[in-house]
Amino acid sequence: MEYYFSDKMKALKPSAIREIFKSLGDPEMISFAAGNPSPRSFPVEELSRIGADIFANASTAALQYSVTEGYPPLRSEVEKRMREKFNIGREGDMTIITSGGQQGIELSCKALCNEGDVVICEDPTFIGALNAFRSCGAKTVGLPLGDDGIEAESLDKLLTETPNAKIVYLIPTFQNPAGICTSLEKRKAVYDVCVKHGIIIIEDNPYGELRFAGEDIPTIKSMDTEGIVLYSSSFSKILSAGMRVGYMCGPEPIIQKMVVAKQSEDVHTNIFFQMLTHRFMTECDLDGHIQGIRGLYRDKCSLMLSTLDRVMPECVKYTRPQGGLFLWLTLPEEIKMIDFVQRALENKVAVVPGNTFLCDTAGAINAVRLNYSTPSDEDIVRGCEILGRVAREMLA
Amino acid sequence: MEYYFSDKMKALKPSAIREIFKSLGDPEMISFAAGNPSPRSFPVEELSRIGADIFANASTAALQYSVTEGYPPLRSEVEKRMREKFNIGREGDMTIITSGGQQGIELSCKALCNEGDVVICEDPTFIGALNAFRSCGAKTVGLPLGDDGIEAESLDKLLTETPNAKIVYLIPTFQNPAGICTSLEKRKAVYDVCVKHGIIIIEDNPYGELRFAGEDIPTIKSMDTEGIVLYSSSFSKILSAGMRVGYMCGPEPIIQKMVVAKQSEDVHTNIFFQMLTHRFMTECDLDGHIQGIRGLYRDKCSLMLSTLDRVMPECVKYTRPQGGLFLWLTLPEEIKMIDFVQRALENKVAVVPGNTFLCDTAGAINAVRLNYSTPSDEDIVRGCEILGRVAREMLA
Repeated sequence: MEYYFSDKMKALKPSAIREIFKSLGDPEMISFAAGNPSPRSFPVEELSRIGADIFANASTAALQYSVTEGYPPLRSEVEKRMREKFNIGREGDMTIITSGGQQGIELSCKALCNEGDVVICEDPTFIGALNAFRSCGAKTVGLPLGDDGIEAESLDKLLTETPNAKIVYLIPTFQNPAGICTSLEKRKAVYDVCVKHGIIIIEDNPYGELRFAGEDIPTIKSMDTEGIVLYSSSFSKILSAGMRVGYMCGPEPIIQKMVVAKQSEDVHTNIFFQMLTHRFMTECDLDGHIQGIRGLYRDKCSLMLSTLDRVMPECVKYTRPQGGLFLWLTLPEEIKMIDFVQRALENKVAVVPGNTFLCDTAGAINAVRLNYSTPSDEDIVRGCEILGRVAREMLA
Repeated sequence: MEYYFSDKMKALKPSAIREIFKSLGDPEMISFAAGNPSPRSFPVEELSRIGADIFANASTAALQYSVTEGYPPLRSEVEKRMREKFNIGREGDMTIITSGGQQGIELSCKALCNEGDVVICEDPTFIGALNAFRSCGAKTVGLPLGDDGIEAESLDKLLTETPNAKIVYLIPTFQNPAGICTSLEKRKAVYDVCVKHGIIIIEDNPYGELRFAGEDIPTIKSMDTEGIVLYSSSFSKILSAGMRVGYMCGPEPIIQKMVVAKQSEDVHTNIFFQMLTHRFMTECDLDGHIQGIRGLYRDKCSLMLSTLDRVMPECVKYTRPQGGLFLWLTLPEEIKMIDFVQRALENKVAVVPGNTFLCDTAGAINAVRLNYSTPSDEDIVRGCEILGRVAREMLA
């Protein structure tokens, strides 16, 4: 039997990161390749205690079918937190609970894009979002990501030239993979351009709460007087990634369409963990818990940066993140990125090749992504030392 | 701001059942409308005990990101059970864990169908599957469901006339909504026709283990020497619906494409409940537990049938299921289905209008679906008595 697949699947390749993740069976491998939160960020004791209580006192609701838009008390609590912390949520907005932030991105594209429609992305950007757009048959077009975001003028021009553009996808805060923040000025300019063109923005903000240096910058969604921004976030980086609980807040007509689409995808998100998340938010000290994670990542990021400062040749450049999970390391011309990745792997350090994150993966980008949240302190030091040695050898 | 949606979303309407489910706030309403398993089918004590143990001894793995295709020990255990119990799984097959059976259906259509391609369905059929196909931009075409399945000859003719048909979707065992089983003879004939046309069958079997009368009939997948059958099932009806753990077994090239598509939808299924399901399967008496559920549904179905026998006018016909959750009640010409549903609602009994389950919901079908797994015994009796009174009044 010969099997035939849909055209949209042909545009889709397994995420290089997930593939690397799978091949990390080698216990000697130091992985800077994952995007995993530190296991120390999971509040196991509280989750365990509340989980036991849900089994004891609310098992029927926790194990039975539930409503697609999400567990109502969790939706309310998420809305309250977004409003109070981030000035997010205006008259006419609605929130849906999704199976991880990933699902919100995919559902919004499914709701908004026909096959062949265009999603404009920062280049480089989150591979999971790129694949979600491709899986809906949309085309991804990239705008170069500068040190503080994309250029509003370039976006204006691109939108004028691309009448079938339907979404602008942005990660303004601690961008994945680059680790940078878009400045307030650029956020405003980009928002204004999108209002002018009447185009929807997806503001993806899974790392926003993980700031360990500098000052918070208002989200684009907080400026959204016109109702054009879908705001996506999740509990993956602050409670548990494996539970798959995320959310999206945006204009009610769009969220309602996403509810209908979600119904056909998974009916609803695991209800036990929706209840658990709600109880943690209302009974435990979520802010205090997040404060602890920030300290943890501040230390890990500092350790990675100070080690790189010590071992890397000067011609190797890297971002100095103020939050999030990643830094972005740019190699000099003399070092070919793909050879560097290969040599690093041979020396038991896994990093993600930068072209993975491009709209056009055949594009040239002489950079790699490093993650500091997952590896142990010892591995951070040892891994960076190995990368430094590899770089120096390749320059010699 | 005016919002525009993708064409495929226009074909999609909120499931009437989910909508009715939502409006069931009225505590006096007796619902025969849901498809919920009985809460008594959840093995709360064991799940609670194992859950506590996972939190205590395997919390990192249970709360961290995991692999997309599913928790490997669960996949193995599911494969073993399918092989031993149902003779399912041949050389070249692979199993993916999905977020409920629903996701497997949606992912397979996404992998196989371009927009405008056709999925052939039993008419009536499961609304969740119809919407999944529509959400992928596929068209659904129905073949009338007889007392023992669709006609192989009609399928042969339809496939010949429909070159862009990509999937035949069937629920051969305790069909939803009709409650009937396709005979072995027809299963074989339908399989042979599909082999002849080289078309993929989705065999959806969420209720197969819930037989409480009669003899098991071999699944179509068990005959699948040619590698054309995707077999879908889940733990929703035997452990917990709210946890969203299902699976699909089929030819590896197709399942691999589904893994890639799943990566962009939700990365992976809630890992804690995958581990919980695996531990239940290996440490507890799953077969014994299912035996208990069968007894429960046998009693509930008998009670509904005996009450209907007592209260319904003879011209009202209904199926006598040997398993599953539903029976299908056909009204005489004198009673207009939609008026019957309305009058029943006014009298505080919710049933699902039969046209909900048609490929073309504008089609005429003078029948409704009744569920006996969710309501209490008392409500079964009282609800049927009300339906009987409504029917007699409408005939008078």
